[in-house]
Amino acid sequence: MELRLIELIRQFSAKAASLAKGRAEPVRTAAAGLIRAIGDDAAVLRPVPGMDLVITTDTLCQDVHFDLAYFSPYTLGKRLAAVNLSDIAAMGAVPEYGFLNLEIPKEFSGPEDLEGFWRPFIYGLTCRLAQFGALLAGGDTVSSAGGLSLTLTLLGRVQEGRALLRSGAMPGELLYCSGPLGEADAGLDILKGRISFRAAGRRPSRRVLRRLIARHLLPVPRVELGRMLADVGASSCIDVSDGIATDAAHLAEESGCRVVIDEIRLPVSRALRLLSMQQGRGRSQRKWLRKKVLSGGEDFELVWTIPPERAGQMERAVSAACGIRPVRIGWVEEGRGLYLKKRCGGLEEISFGGYEH
Amino acid sequence: MELRLIELIRQFSAKAASLAKGRAEPVRTAAAGLIRAIGDDAAVLRPVPGMDLVITTDTLCQDVHFDLAYFSPYTLGKRLAAVNLSDIAAMGAVPEYGFLNLEIPKEFSGPEDLEGFWRPFIYGLTCRLAQFGALLAGGDTVSSAGGLSLTLTLLGRVQEGRALLRSGAMPGELLYCSGPLGEADAGLDILKGRISFRAAGRRPSRRVLRRLIARHLLPVPRVELGRMLADVGASSCIDVSDGIATDAAHLAEESGCRVVIDEIRLPVSRALRLLSMQQGRGRSQRKWLRKKVLSGGEDFELVWTIPPERAGQMERAVSAACGIRPVRIGWVEEGRGLYLKKRCGGLEEISFGGYEH
Repeated sequence: MELRLIELIRQFSAKAASLAKGRAEPVRTAAAGLIRAIGDDAAVLRPVPGMDLVITTDTLCQDVHFDLAYFSPYTLGKRLAAVNLSDIAAMGAVPEYGFLNLEIPKEFSGPEDLEGFWRPFIYGLTCRLAQFGALLAGGDTVSSAGGLSLTLTLLGRVQEGRALLRSGAMPGELLYCSGPLGEADAGLDILKGRISFRAAGRRPSRRVLRRLIARHLLPVPRVELGRMLADVGASSCIDVSDGIATDAAHLAEESGCRVVIDEIRLPVSRALRLLSMQQGRGRSQRKWLRKKVLSGGEDFELVWTIPPERAGQMERAVSAACGIRPVRIGWVEEGRGLYLKKRCGGLEEISFGGYEH
Repeated sequence: MELRLIELIRQFSAKAASLAKGRAEPVRTAAAGLIRAIGDDAAVLRPVPGMDLVITTDTLCQDVHFDLAYFSPYTLGKRLAAVNLSDIAAMGAVPEYGFLNLEIPKEFSGPEDLEGFWRPFIYGLTCRLAQFGALLAGGDTVSSAGGLSLTLTLLGRVQEGRALLRSGAMPGELLYCSGPLGEADAGLDILKGRISFRAAGRRPSRRVLRRLIARHLLPVPRVELGRMLADVGASSCIDVSDGIATDAAHLAEESGCRVVIDEIRLPVSRALRLLSMQQGRGRSQRKWLRKKVLSGGEDFELVWTIPPERAGQMERAVSAACGIRPVRIGWVEEGRGLYLKKRCGGLEEISFGGYEH
């Protein structure tokens, strides 16, 4: 089983590599730098001169990070890729090489699992990677006495010294976000049956529910945006994986500044607002909505800082190239911690108000 | 718990980095190329110009790859590092950066586990890495609904185009091995209680048993040797992780040649021979010994090929620099597959006669 699975991975990887080689790109493709992939003691890559290397790794465990009740193997493969791609995006880097570690319990090691589970999983994973120019270049496949567990390690490259760190924010800069927050968490709530649809009030349409669910199942990593932000001189960046109250607090902490988010400017989607109408009225509705937006994780939007003099150019460049309208949600000032400027006017510290898995 | 564990890893990693920075080495140390380690979305590294990058990853799962009945956390950390270092060694590369993924079940996430389990584990891991100049630069720590599982991804560097692939062997070359085989597997047998010590015959001393057990618990990766082999022009290399009958067969397959091992030249240690005396007499003893040597995995010795005209220089260089006497165990010829030239004279195909986990 393991040898046949490795063969399967090798096939998909080779196919993606040949596709990448055929693309008419001005820059070197990932495939060109791959000296030796699956089939040796280790993979061999040739770094691009003048480029720094960016590396991230994420593990998804069954029943902790995903539930096969609502994840198809194909979607799971795509999600694993997206979670890692988002980290590479947050560094302003171009993803290149993936390494996959699979821990396979008995229930997933039958011959029917190879076609029924592993083929669509690998297909989803390699598709999502290939979409952003990245390839699988190695990994390890082992039997597990515990549950199913999937680890992807992803390498990317960025111009020397241009990686977008969490530590680069300076007082006086502006804080931006790439899109609406809280949707993925609401989608997870729907999947988990945590949302009560009250009899009264308008029930959100199926389209709205599907949108929110898709935000959890199939997040889109902001790879193009990250690259552009590195080019236009953003000073720091992070992806929203644990909720903005946690992630922006990391940014404040690592930069040694105070970050202030203007509550009124936080992007809330129509879909989330419609769903919130089912969760109470007045204050309880606002409370639910606020919690989703501030503490809801895994939207994988980017949050970044930039000096005000470069903000206009950045907004135009991002709108033109990525089709995203960056939302200015706050600013950086002297001090420490993450604060929320509330609708009523007061400031409230909200550092690490998110959640940990 | 997770945040405190990451803090612990960060401390050990920073300590190792400062030690590495202080070393008076003629070449760049790993720490010098580490732009950003733990604490960002991803690590940032600066590759060395003219060097290829080598990457390997290995997962160890509880009760599949290790048993805490005989692994202390410290030993386990050392072993995880060694398994990966051995792959880097087999490529002729210098290890540089490690990335650690931990899947932590409930039983290992109490506050007492931080000091009692995780501190010695991380200590063992970082010590073994530092011994060969490598540092922890990142990773991921997650809760697991299944068992304890440890993944290390290790990056190394090697002169451009000089990585020792499995595919470089050519007919007419000689086959070498770095040390005795089968000891680690025998050590595992002792730990697992699979060895029957018969009443008759000499019982191996405790020193002998300890030596064999140590070969399983604390394998020594042949990092220096691998570097030297890349320098003196070895044509291919592999580490013995699944037994030489499997690993040398990989080498034959990837190189498109036939590899012949001369049974009489296979290095068998005195300790293993002493233990074999307990496992029968005459033919059954020889059969047991042969199985251990050919199919016993995880000795992490290196097996390599080299053109005969470079063999003498290689032998002298390796003996002088690494304190290892390379053993010539066979040759490469036209054809396919792995063959054993038996004591009695005949040839027997033994390709993939090892085992898979």
